[in-house]
Amino acid sequence: MFQANPLLRRVSAPPIPRAVAWAGAYAGDHGDLIDLSQGAPGCPPAPLLLERLAETAGDGRLAGYGPILGEASLRDAYAAHVSQLYGAAIAGGDVAITAGCNEAFFVTVLALAGAGDAVLLPAPWYFNHEMTLSMLGIEARPLPSRAETGFVPDPDEAEVLIDERVRAVVLVTPNNPTGAVYPAHVVARFAALCARRGIWLILDETYRDFRAEDGPPHALLEAPDWGERVVQLYSFSKTYAVPGHRLGAIVAGRGLMCEIAKVLDCVQICAPRPAQAALAAALPELSDWRETERRKILSRAEAFRTAIEAVEGWRADALGGYFAFLRHPFDVRTDADVAEKLAAERGVLCLPGSWFGQEEGRHLRIAFANAPAAALTEAASRLNTFGETLHAAG
Amino acid sequence: MFQANPLLRRVSAPPIPRAVAWAGAYAGDHGDLIDLSQGAPGCPPAPLLLERLAETAGDGRLAGYGPILGEASLRDAYAAHVSQLYGAAIAGGDVAITAGCNEAFFVTVLALAGAGDAVLLPAPWYFNHEMTLSMLGIEARPLPSRAETGFVPDPDEAEVLIDERVRAVVLVTPNNPTGAVYPAHVVARFAALCARRGIWLILDETYRDFRAEDGPPHALLEAPDWGERVVQLYSFSKTYAVPGHRLGAIVAGRGLMCEIAKVLDCVQICAPRPAQAALAAALPELSDWRETERRKILSRAEAFRTAIEAVEGWRADALGGYFAFLRHPFDVRTDADVAEKLAAERGVLCLPGSWFGQEEGRHLRIAFANAPAAALTEAASRLNTFGETLHAAG
Repeated sequence: MFQANPLLRRVSAPPIPRAVAWAGAYAGDHGDLIDLSQGAPGCPPAPLLLERLAETAGDGRLAGYGPILGEASLRDAYAAHVSQLYGAAIAGGDVAITAGCNEAFFVTVLALAGAGDAVLLPAPWYFNHEMTLSMLGIEARPLPSRAETGFVPDPDEAEVLIDERVRAVVLVTPNNPTGAVYPAHVVARFAALCARRGIWLILDETYRDFRAEDGPPHALLEAPDWGERVVQLYSFSKTYAVPGHRLGAIVAGRGLMCEIAKVLDCVQICAPRPAQAALAAALPELSDWRETERRKILSRAEAFRTAIEAVEGWRADALGGYFAFLRHPFDVRTDADVAEKLAAERGVLCLPGSWFGQEEGRHLRIAFANAPAAALTEAASRLNTFGETLHAAG
Repeated sequence: MFQANPLLRRVSAPPIPRAVAWAGAYAGDHGDLIDLSQGAPGCPPAPLLLERLAETAGDGRLAGYGPILGEASLRDAYAAHVSQLYGAAIAGGDVAITAGCNEAFFVTVLALAGAGDAVLLPAPWYFNHEMTLSMLGIEARPLPSRAETGFVPDPDEAEVLIDERVRAVVLVTPNNPTGAVYPAHVVARFAALCARRGIWLILDETYRDFRAEDGPPHALLEAPDWGERVVQLYSFSKTYAVPGHRLGAIVAGRGLMCEIAKVLDCVQICAPRPAQAALAAALPELSDWRETERRKILSRAEAFRTAIEAVEGWRADALGGYFAFLRHPFDVRTDADVAEKLAAERGVLCLPGSWFGQEEGRHLRIAFANAPAAALTEAASRLNTFGETLHAAG
């Protein structure tokens, strides 16, 4: 009696709050807590953007319902940005604005697949992707990615896993949780595979603006028929430091966009409207700010890479975008055990790889983009002595 | 190849834009277009609320991620409001904040049911409810509501329709599309039925604040174990005239709330945060404004009721909250035909009842809350001569 959806009861609770509880046990012995748990921007938004956000939120004309697929101004502005980055011809009509990239994924998946279908998901995966698929009754079929190959999945291995139930392959690059940045030629091979097998390629590019490389991440959008097989997801939250305002985007072909509109109408009618108008107005003026933030996060990546190389036994098996996937040196400890003790005893909060579907139990996800370089160096130094304690404790 | 979710392909496109296209054909012969199509507030938000919205949107501290279930300040403020209205003991922990009430419904339904299950939905229904259920593979099982009984559904008729696949009954009161306000004793009988059969009662109270009656709409929340079988949905959009800011709420028991949190985390992580903070701060100060708006909309309801009684052949079979369900006098015309011609030839835009799953084809949904009393009187007078034309045209 009075039961919830059984599919949902099998889905784990959102994990971030569980990790935050570990940190609550930290007594502060080694200095302030260093929170490297969540892929959230560590800086406030640009002052210019905050001004625009205040203006549009106070404007009664923007308090009414907006178009389902988003404000034309933001759809056009984002289409122009994507077109320039990819050397492609993306129009405002190819863009849907969502309340963040989790919603973009949820809506896209529901537009493409239903209960009983399957979607190929490189493992380790972003936990909300697996949760979304599971609660919709869609099988999240794991495509292993491994430390030996820098956590870049293999299209040949994917091909073997595709059967008649598989409707799409999901790639997240730069990856969450591993930080792996997939080379353009690998992404191209996945696109070719999907085209050959008549399934969709969903590219989640939430962390796109934090790559070390200049230029486009891949050439898929240059193909005139990209819209028949590729869907690209994006988050304004990370790049413009406004996750609390909830804005993401989907780039999709017109046929699929009709289906996406049906889902968006039911899920939320329209994304928050004043923030859309603010971002549309500010976007052209924010390219310098965006580049400065990118450089800052790239320097944090380098600071963490250098610091971790000096810690005996620990190794970054992948590092890029917002994240590093760190191999811990303890043979008899699970990753969850290591992460909990690291939080409670050393005040370094990060998430165990097993929470992202990685069964091996040897990795921790570090969201280095959050923290200033000094905190990253300090975190690495706490790892040094932590190792000794943990070994001693058995 | 490259197909969308077949369940979704069978869902109709969002209907509002189709009706707007009809109005595009109106040449203005009878004066300005009178748009009675959408249940959207016709007034701007309170100046006080706009000020708060601007303040919080410009506050960088609110630009980060917030709690999945919403800002504690708004959850507490809304819980206090509900507790007072219902004479109940609802706590902030019983409240989840969503990006609007469509999302509240989507999330609640997914928390309760999955593909292959069924949900009882009084017909005519709010089209997004039917769309949501269909795209999730959940059967929207129609529970007829009829003009003869003021479009209030019958619990005895519902009981016969409940089998082992039915997981919930949905009631929308005041109703969209009909405007029927369900008496408290009918709601109580539905709750008793759900309790007896071990299924959930989902109460969508989007238009609650526009009832003509004072006092609580029902007594369900007074039962100490309400949380085991009742879920109550609400929209801040209508009452506070901020649909573009996307805020709604779910009141549910703690057990179900854990499942709802999983869905919310995947659908959008958190509702837009600055608007939550603004509303929490403004809510206690807006009770006079709310009452003034309510009186305004009640006077519009009376103006429309009076005006329509003077139009020969037409009849309001139900009227309340935001909507009237108007019976047209044309035996050989479908409701869609009548609505299209009314928009294109007379500049009165409303939606045909068949779009809400009413098969009879005799009703139009009028969203009177949008329009000043003068426009409602004018709309009624256009109906008078419209009848003659339509009969003459055959």
